[in-house]
Amino acid sequence: MVYATQDGGGGRKLRVGMVGGGRNAFIGAVHRMALRLDDLIVLTAGALSADPENARLSGADLGFAPDRAYSDYREMAVREAARPDGIQAVIIVTPNHLHYPVARAFLEAGIDVICDKPLSTTLEQARELVALTQEKKLVFAVTLNNTGYPMVRQAREMIQAGELGDLRVVHATYIQDWLTNPIDADGQKQAEWRTDPTRAGSSACLADIGVHAHNLALFVTSLELDKVSADLTTFVPGRRLDDNAHVLLRFAGGARGVLAASQVAVGNLNGLSLKVFGTRAGIEWVGETPEFLRFTPYGEPTRVLQRGGPGSSGEARRGSRMPAGHPEGYVEGFANLYRDAAELIVARRSGRTPSAAALAATPGVVDGARGVAFIEAAVESSRNDGAWTSARLI
Amino acid sequence: MVYATQDGGGGRKLRVGMVGGGRNAFIGAVHRMALRLDDLIVLTAGALSADPENARLSGADLGFAPDRAYSDYREMAVREAARPDGIQAVIIVTPNHLHYPVARAFLEAGIDVICDKPLSTTLEQARELVALTQEKKLVFAVTLNNTGYPMVRQAREMIQAGELGDLRVVHATYIQDWLTNPIDADGQKQAEWRTDPTRAGSSACLADIGVHAHNLALFVTSLELDKVSADLTTFVPGRRLDDNAHVLLRFAGGARGVLAASQVAVGNLNGLSLKVFGTRAGIEWVGETPEFLRFTPYGEPTRVLQRGGPGSSGEARRGSRMPAGHPEGYVEGFANLYRDAAELIVARRSGRTPSAAALAATPGVVDGARGVAFIEAAVESSRNDGAWTSARLI
Amino acid sequence: MVYATQDGGGGRKLRVGMVGGGRNAFIGAVHRMALRLDDLIVLTAGALSADPENARLSGADLGFAPDRAYSDYREMAVREAARPDGIQAVIIVTPNHLHYPVARAFLEAGIDVICDKPLSTTLEQARELVALTQEKKLVFAVTLNNTGYPMVRQAREMIQAGELGDLRVVHATYIQDWLTNPIDADGQKQAEWRTDPTRAGSSACLADIGVHAHNLALFVTSLELDKVSADLTTFVPGRRLDDNAHVLLRFAGGARGVLAASQVAVGNLNGLSLKVFGTRAGIEWVGETPEFLRFTPYGEPTRVLQRGGPGSSGEARRGSRMPAGHPEGYVEGFANLYRDAAELIVARRSGRTPSAAALAATPGVVDGARGVAFIEAAVESSRNDGAWTSARLI
Amino acid sequence: MVYATQDGGGGRKLRVGMVGGGRNAFIGAVHRMALRLDDLIVLTAGALSADPENARLSGADLGFAPDRAYSDYREMAVREAARPDGIQAVIIVTPNHLHYPVARAFLEAGIDVICDKPLSTTLEQARELVALTQEKKLVFAVTLNNTGYPMVRQAREMIQAGELGDLRVVHATYIQDWLTNPIDADGQKQAEWRTDPTRAGSSACLADIGVHAHNLALFVTSLELDKVSADLTTFVPGRRLDDNAHVLLRFAGGARGVLAASQVAVGNLNGLSLKVFGTRAGIEWVGETPEFLRFTPYGEPTRVLQRGGPGSSGEARRGSRMPAGHPEGYVEGFANLYRDAAELIVARRSGRTPSAAALAATPGVVDGARGVAFIEAAVESSRNDGAWTSARLI
Repeated sequence: MVYATQDGGGGRKLRVGMVGGGRNAFIGAVHRMALRLDDLIVLTAGALSADPENARLSGADLGFAPDRAYSDYREMAVREAARPDGIQAVIIVTPNHLHYPVARAFLEAGIDVICDKPLSTTLEQARELVALTQEKKLVFAVTLNNTGYPMVRQAREMIQAGELGDLRVVHATYIQDWLTNPIDADGQKQAEWRTDPTRAGSSACLADIGVHAHNLALFVTSLELDKVSADLTTFVPGRRLDDNAHVLLRFAGGARGVLAASQVAVGNLNGLSLKVFGTRAGIEWVGETPEFLRFTPYGEPTRVLQRGGPGSSGEARRGSRMPAGHPEGYVEGFANLYRDAAELIVARRSGRTPSAAALAATPGVVDGARGVAFIEAAVESSRNDGAWTSARLI
Repeated sequence: MVYATQDGGGGRKLRVGMVGGGRNAFIGAVHRMALRLDDLIVLTAGALSADPENARLSGADLGFAPDRAYSDYREMAVREAARPDGIQAVIIVTPNHLHYPVARAFLEAGIDVICDKPLSTTLEQARELVALTQEKKLVFAVTLNNTGYPMVRQAREMIQAGELGDLRVVHATYIQDWLTNPIDADGQKQAEWRTDPTRAGSSACLADIGVHAHNLALFVTSLELDKVSADLTTFVPGRRLDDNAHVLLRFAGGARGVLAASQVAVGNLNGLSLKVFGTRAGIEWVGETPEFLRFTPYGEPTRVLQRGGPGSSGEARRGSRMPAGHPEGYVEGFANLYRDAAELIVARRSGRTPSAAALAATPGVVDGARGVAFIEAAVESSRNDGAWTSARLI
Repeated sequence: MVYATQDGGGGRKLRVGMVGGGRNAFIGAVHRMALRLDDLIVLTAGALSADPENARLSGADLGFAPDRAYSDYREMAVREAARPDGIQAVIIVTPNHLHYPVARAFLEAGIDVICDKPLSTTLEQARELVALTQEKKLVFAVTLNNTGYPMVRQAREMIQAGELGDLRVVHATYIQDWLTNPIDADGQKQAEWRTDPTRAGSSACLADIGVHAHNLALFVTSLELDKVSADLTTFVPGRRLDDNAHVLLRFAGGARGVLAASQVAVGNLNGLSLKVFGTRAGIEWVGETPEFLRFTPYGEPTRVLQRGGPGSSGEARRGSRMPAGHPEGYVEGFANLYRDAAELIVARRSGRTPSAAALAATPGVVDGARGVAFIEAAVESSRNDGAWTSARLI
Repeated sequence: MVYATQDGGGGRKLRVGMVGGGRNAFIGAVHRMALRLDDLIVLTAGALSADPENARLSGADLGFAPDRAYSDYREMAVREAARPDGIQAVIIVTPNHLHYPVARAFLEAGIDVICDKPLSTTLEQARELVALTQEKKLVFAVTLNNTGYPMVRQAREMIQAGELGDLRVVHATYIQDWLTNPIDADGQKQAEWRTDPTRAGSSACLADIGVHAHNLALFVTSLELDKVSADLTTFVPGRRLDDNAHVLLRFAGGARGVLAASQVAVGNLNGLSLKVFGTRAGIEWVGETPEFLRFTPYGEPTRVLQRGGPGSSGEARRGSRMPAGHPEGYVEGFANLYRDAAELIVARRSGRTPSAAALAATPGVVDGARGVAFIEAAVESSRNDGAWTSARLI
């Protein structure tokens, strides 16, 4: 196995900007680590904060030219679009409610978008972004980043190759415990906005983590979700949105599923997992030990597939930087998303066709919109005492 | 730690009989291993088969006197009740639909009952058995045997002691793959009767394994199940009953849960597990590695509690025969049920009060009936498109 | 898969006696659980204690006739040999130093022997028992009980079938922590005699657990141990024998190994494990989760073989009582030893040839003697600063 | 917990060069990913290959100015030392035998060194490098990179704080299977030089991986290794150096250990692990799941400590970039080494004192030399039939 050096080279890097992610923000720094790993992308501008002083200082931290450390994303979109050396794509890492207006502004300026999840806080906005992206013929990647794990990609590839047969049952779980106590009421910044309907949308738990479990299930299975029956709960007194969600799933074609998401599941730091069972085989993947994929053909012993090791598929190897047994993790998976998104953007700008692999592996605006449709359907179902509710995008 | 020798002693053993469990049966032999382990019980009579020849041969295998190898359980009940050396309790290990009439016959003969699960195939029958048991003031134990695992008992004890705080979320899973293919249609005996409505009842998957997950959840949490919303599916063409069940749970007091049971989950041989999350701590137990219990107080590292080891509670130690690290398993847990049931029966017969521990740890006729109520509620909910349906016994 | 009922039947059980194992003893009760599991053996006499009162009371616990509750094992050997209904085999569960004289007494009385490990406290005694057994043409089984685990037997079977190719490397580990503190000096009974040279022999740690790791390695690999280089240590001040042993191994044919045994390895309750690597594949087995065997053919993914599940070999299935996923444990493995030993004894007494499987799976007097040779060689090597020392029996 | 953004900022990055690591090399690319992660270091020059054409192309890949893409490391040392914008440190990622001459050249040019392991192929060279580093008062970091894992650092911190009490037993294992077959003879480049005495040194297995296990044990325990007794083996016919090593360890102060390293252990991709047992507690760390550390105080249940989670120590948190449960891996641990080494270099150059934490966590030239002393001692002991041989540096 040859591991490609992932060094980008002088002068050929994609120029990108960032909205959100200033000092004291969390996820912006993760995106920056991910995009640095392969050296394919250089960050040259940003509206890192709406606060001018924070925007200026945060931009200086990252070495931006002073006139490219914006505090207004609209101004940034217009000016960068006008510069000959302007950014070629924007990364949006704001709270949820800003994804839509920021993405809209950059799409309208003709700039490709890499946006954090959930795509938007309403399905209507999500549909608008889908339409606008298609109209503008731009790249719109959504950092539903668990799709970047090599063994997740391998699972998808195996299912597409028919190794599981017809799919029957899907169990997706994403359980954490960081909202066990009312830290949102106590001023913890991350907790506060994620449980605030004006910034998070109609659900906290589903918008923060449930949408990851949903996307993971859809990405791996290639199934279309038809309907959901949900039971959303707010356990912590005073919390404004749900902190636990149990959702039954019905897929087009007859497969059934359960999705459980919780932020009050004491003892679970980031418990994402997926099980899929088909007529011929079953798989299991656990996010805290992402290098392994359990695979059992019916009537045979379970195989423990390990990234880079025997049985690694093409997609697992395409997303590998290290030999087997030298653990890769969250940032490496995230970096796979950036690598593929960069390929799509470079291809679009140069009029070339990107690789089918990069195209298939990159969650796009439609995948993002499906996540929002899922959230809205689950919220509505839960309000209607669990009535089965369509989660289709259209 | 002192491990009591579990030797019963000459002449002081409880005399029991068995209905079902003849040659070619499965679960009867398991019960017999379990009851032999501690040497507290001696099997002296049985209606091991309705087929006279099989009954005779099976009885000879077990050393029964020829006149105590019955082929008619009604005759057995009457005759054994009349003998001075007659059985003091009966073990019922027939297919589901016979639990009710057999149990009824022995209760009416004044003989204590140890009956396999599910208690009966209809809730009406279950309620009758509850009433009759109470009227006759007899012992009625139901071998919902997962409650016998020491670490399951410890989990219950910890929750009762408040170590988890108020309970919020319960995830119970029981997934297998042995019915992935239509082996019931191909004449596999165990598969055939378990998917036959006339012998299994209104559900196959829930009656066979879902009821274990339900009981495990209730036993450990001491919660009362209020309502269920269920989605039952039959994946294998031609199968007469469900082979997969996804059930949302609402408990009295506000806790919520998910129960997933499947017999087409390829790669799972006997995947029973339970997670419970409270305001103060969470636990996780996995049935295929039953010696361990993961326990996490909020804000502290996870503890791996091991049977017999540091942190073992009184109940875990009461149910232990071997030092820590010398694995105990299914039969040992089953034997704990028999040991406690024997204590209840001996106490009743001698007019003494059994230990509170044995009383609390033994699933009784009411627990059995709750299981049947759960099955009926889930079946009804699934037929009504997931409508929330009461699973209460009364 | 058909699981045979393991019921012995009336009047056809093997009659055995026991030396050692009275009230307050530990391992005797384990043996009794193991032999009861299959109902093939009935315990009818014993010298359960050298103390007459304890012997009497312990015998009554087990329902022995008063005249068969001996306090002198020599008297027991003579009298039982003379009775028409006398015992057909004896089980020896005394401290180590008594294994030899007790075994000798029963062999001389013409009675088959089932003896706990280590076979004796000196190699000279061990060789005498080998010679006497061969001279008397009796059965002599040694309860090196880890060989009874189904997945251990499967590992052996796979290696014998060549699935690992030529063996190269063996890692055997047995680590516990119960002697971390000087509980032997504080009067803990089990600790006291096991660290007492007059009762344990020349090594504590190796005689108690190292000999199990040694036997496990030899049983699984079918290799002959040639030489050892050892470093034995006593960490706890005042302890009279070693509590930690590190031993390098050289096998006939060129394979190399490491054996580590410790009773001061904090955090390990009963950490027995074995890894074997050959030219074609490798395996790993862990005693605290004995139902699983990891098997990796070179260049392929690791398989997790599970007792009773797909990929179970004939030997694994022969030693199974429960379906896959219904955990079996220590007692069940021990019972497999008793089942096979009983078959050997019954066959010898009736002049029949026992099954090759039972013969191969039962550790005999030669295996026991090899364990003593290993202990003596390691002690001698350690005294000689690690000089490579022959561990061969002859 | 606040996770610092790891962005380096414009113009303030450490300028470094690299020797080795051109096209088709393996470990150089890993180093480059690691140093990019935190954006503290910029690579501006290199002698990436001794082949001029490869050097030129590889330098262009990395955006080096053409005159800074050297093919002769001596020329590079001299010229870079003379440039006002010359490199401030060199990274050496050549095969083993070049570590010494290259390091020597840069030290003599007054340039700080970051060198891959093993430090050199002879102890004499290692001692020279120690002396030269001390004479020049330069920074010399050795990328014994497993010390960079946060939970490894936590283990060290806990032991230094006395949480394990006095240390007794150390088990270090590093087993792989990539040299199971004679791929070195078949021209696989990595295998070829690592088993070639002229490039690898006197041992293959110990120089490649054993030295990592050795360093991990010493780093975590803070013990000094006194003597070794070794058994080195070459299993693959035709191989010129060992592919398996079993080593007994004696530490100053009385602790004992076992180190097993193998490259023919089929089924192990990169099986590095460490267990340490003291009078008060024990720990276990496994390199393929590096986010977890098992910790057991004597008489208490095992804790599973997780990076970033409850119970994370200061050192674990200092080395964390992501919240708990978002897995970090090999590159992140490697990056911790680079971050600390950069701090040491910046501090030296500016005359400041670096943090005690960075100083303690960075393996230096003395640690590297200890590794070489270990290799030489083990080789000598094995040649002398396992005679205990000093592994001390002096």
